[in-house]
Amino acid sequence: MNMSAARDVSGPRERLVVIGGDAAGMSAASQARRLRSAEELEIVAFERGHFTSFSACGIPYWVGGDVDDRDQLIARSPEEHRARDIDLRMRTEVTEIDVARGRVRARDVDSGDEYWTSYDKLVIATGARPIRPDMPGTDAPGVHGVQTLDDGQALIDTLTRTRGRRAVVVGAGYIGVEMAEALINRGYEVTVVNRGSEPMSTLDPDMGRLVHEAMEGLGITMVDDTEVTKILTGEDGRVRAVATEDAEYPADVVVLGIGVRPETTLARAAGLPLGDHGGLLTDLAMRVRGHENIWAGGDCVEVLDLVSGQERHIALGTHANKHGQVIGTNAAGGYATFPGVVGTAVSKVCDLEIARTGLREKDARRAGLQYVTATIESTSRAGYYPNSSSMTVKMLAERRTGRLLGVQIVGREGAGKRVDIAAVALTAGMTVEQMVSLDLGYAPPFSPVWDPVLVAARKATKAVNAGTS
Amino acid sequence: MNMSAARDVSGPRERLVVIGGDAAGMSAASQARRLRSAEELEIVAFERGHFTSFSACGIPYWVGGDVDDRDQLIARSPEEHRARDIDLRMRTEVTEIDVARGRVRARDVDSGDEYWTSYDKLVIATGARPIRPDMPGTDAPGVHGVQTLDDGQALIDTLTRTRGRRAVVVGAGYIGVEMAEALINRGYEVTVVNRGSEPMSTLDPDMGRLVHEAMEGLGITMVDDTEVTKILTGEDGRVRAVATEDAEYPADVVVLGIGVRPETTLARAAGLPLGDHGGLLTDLAMRVRGHENIWAGGDCVEVLDLVSGQERHIALGTHANKHGQVIGTNAAGGYATFPGVVGTAVSKVCDLEIARTGLREKDARRAGLQYVTATIESTSRAGYYPNSSSMTVKMLAERRTGRLLGVQIVGREGAGKRVDIAAVALTAGMTVEQMVSLDLGYAPPFSPVWDPVLVAARKATKAVNAGTS
Repeated sequence: MNMSAARDVSGPRERLVVIGGDAAGMSAASQARRLRSAEELEIVAFERGHFTSFSACGIPYWVGGDVDDRDQLIARSPEEHRARDIDLRMRTEVTEIDVARGRVRARDVDSGDEYWTSYDKLVIATGARPIRPDMPGTDAPGVHGVQTLDDGQALIDTLTRTRGRRAVVVGAGYIGVEMAEALINRGYEVTVVNRGSEPMSTLDPDMGRLVHEAMEGLGITMVDDTEVTKILTGEDGRVRAVATEDAEYPADVVVLGIGVRPETTLARAAGLPLGDHGGLLTDLAMRVRGHENIWAGGDCVEVLDLVSGQERHIALGTHANKHGQVIGTNAAGGYATFPGVVGTAVSKVCDLEIARTGLREKDARRAGLQYVTATIESTSRAGYYPNSSSMTVKMLAERRTGRLLGVQIVGREGAGKRVDIAAVALTAGMTVEQMVSLDLGYAPPFSPVWDPVLVAARKATKAVNAGTS
Repeated sequence: MNMSAARDVSGPRERLVVIGGDAAGMSAASQARRLRSAEELEIVAFERGHFTSFSACGIPYWVGGDVDDRDQLIARSPEEHRARDIDLRMRTEVTEIDVARGRVRARDVDSGDEYWTSYDKLVIATGARPIRPDMPGTDAPGVHGVQTLDDGQALIDTLTRTRGRRAVVVGAGYIGVEMAEALINRGYEVTVVNRGSEPMSTLDPDMGRLVHEAMEGLGITMVDDTEVTKILTGEDGRVRAVATEDAEYPADVVVLGIGVRPETTLARAAGLPLGDHGGLLTDLAMRVRGHENIWAGGDCVEVLDLVSGQERHIALGTHANKHGQVIGTNAAGGYATFPGVVGTAVSKVCDLEIARTGLREKDARRAGLQYVTATIESTSRAGYYPNSSSMTVKMLAERRTGRLLGVQIVGREGAGKRVDIAAVALTAGMTVEQMVSLDLGYAPPFSPVWDPVLVAARKATKAVNAGTS
């Protein structure tokens, strides 16, 4: 593909165009700028919203009152980006990618003006869009998503205005459980309605059950196995309840936390390759497959799961930042790769910590892997040390080879980040027997003499060895 | 070596003799019993002290008042061991190992009676002995080691009786800093006298400096680069001060925390192989080298450092427990190995957390490795999340190859156990560039979007790549 004919830049300076001003896009732009001066590389970035480089993951803590101010969630403002010679065009939506001619069409959201901008190199970082259930009432006042800072502000405004104290959260994944905490912290009676058999479907149901019980212990009403059919409004048009097949749950405010899908409308229209989950497909350098000069990263791409060998879609700021770093390096003529993920995630609801990495049982089955499981209970510190709290660790290992396949942890303080031990072990392809010997940090305030992850590895090793063939 | 001639057991039942009733010895005994019934394997264990299977690491927290009761530090009492068909002989010291005839001589400490017991299989778990400085006054009332539960009780008795509130801790390694915290918690004015240039010589001096400053911030008087020459006593014979070349530090109580050496007097006399650090040398199955039926583990052995390829002596309960597990499995006819350590250790002084794994700069030099270093500051949680605290991470990577060589972390809550990420990466032989892509748990209450360990890995990668050759 010879794109030089399509260039409208004069002189030898290359132009890098970035679509999307959040974590992946602006990390890419910043990293490219670090490596190449403005004389060498022009960088134009388009963002359709009001903000750049914000932490969507931080919204629940802003809504819940742990974070005082919206601006704390903004890692770098448009002005800061511009001060680094990035031509950042806010409130400007890219409406078309013309791959053949190497240009994008942009529209000023406020004025409606449209124009074409050519690129030598293109970064697609269009993020994800929240799944909005297809049912009546989702647009009623008092019903909120929590994807953007604008969403967060709208929810906070509603919470400030609303007298009633009944909140319903639809969905019990990461966003759902974190929003449940936020609403508890603001003094609401919280009901979580979830169509899965247990909350946190990113865990196996037996571990999800522990989350269910712990959330009930925190005073949250958990309604599992239940599809929301309708959001009911009152005479004032505001939300008044969430309806399911069998029941109505009165609600003064409703938060939709059902998850997100890759935002790849533009990429699809441009004929770029998408995977089974609707995300862009890239190579290890984060280049869109088959396209020398187009990169993509963040919530709009699929990533390789190193454990299953299959592509997945995971919307997570930490990946988006890494993608941006890799893309910026490569777009500036350097070399970096993003080898893939092992599927690590951690969350909390009040003092309950929830973590997972690798494959669940059903992921392993889907990947054609046979496995054994081991579940243990242990404590975060030596049993005799004050404030030692219990945790449950579940481990999956491949049948016969004993290769670690996944770990799930539910517990209190000190439980969540222990998943990192397993994340590194998964990346390294360790067996559970190798893990038993891991030289982990031990002292009574930090761990029992056998760290809970090692106790699980011991039990998993036994299960592997007990397998007949 | 044919040892069957030396057996004095009748019938086919084998006898396993264990010397030492603490972590390594009793873990070995327990594991062997799990795998082999009393009909198949007789187990005789000798312990010269009053306690079995106690947590020496827990003593500072008992002295400091975090742990109420001595018995909480005992994982398993003599009665519990005996209930599992282990013939445990308390207050019985082994005085000789007769390898040629496959027997040990034991002495009842109270009665003085001596007798020989033959073995088919022998486990040496004689632990370590505290280094007692060779200077006047170390035996004076008010001067205490903290190696055994009896030591801990004696110190607590002194603290309870003593009116004065001035404590001097000699040594600033793990025991020293943990005892400093214990004494602070009991309301003492604490001075730590340390002959190294900074406290925590298990860290590089630049990181030790941070510990020095933080300990001073906690109100502890730090005296570095200073050798204690004498312990001064008053007219009542009790300690009254600690003297150095230049000064005297008044002391109502003195705690010696200078470290330990392998207790291998018996092994040496028996002609068993010892290493440069005075510890027993074993193979990967924890068998004493050259001896089919003798195993050794815990604080009396040297272990292979997987990073330097050299033997080290590390007295740590977590290793002792793993050794015991491996020995018990092998002595019972199973198969297990202890591949070695990477040198992970974690400690705390009040809210300061100190961790290290792998090689320090001087270890790397000694091992013939050339390296680059990177030191970064970051936070335990997202910067905007409440109670986010700062930490410093130092990383060593091999020149050119970029292989991770070591990590040191000093910070507050959430700093210490992050060293586990590096411990697993070291075990797997990862490069710092590979670490940059690690899929670690991220959510604002748990980590910034780039975990501090990843930030250090990024900087170390740059340093490796900047190397000219």
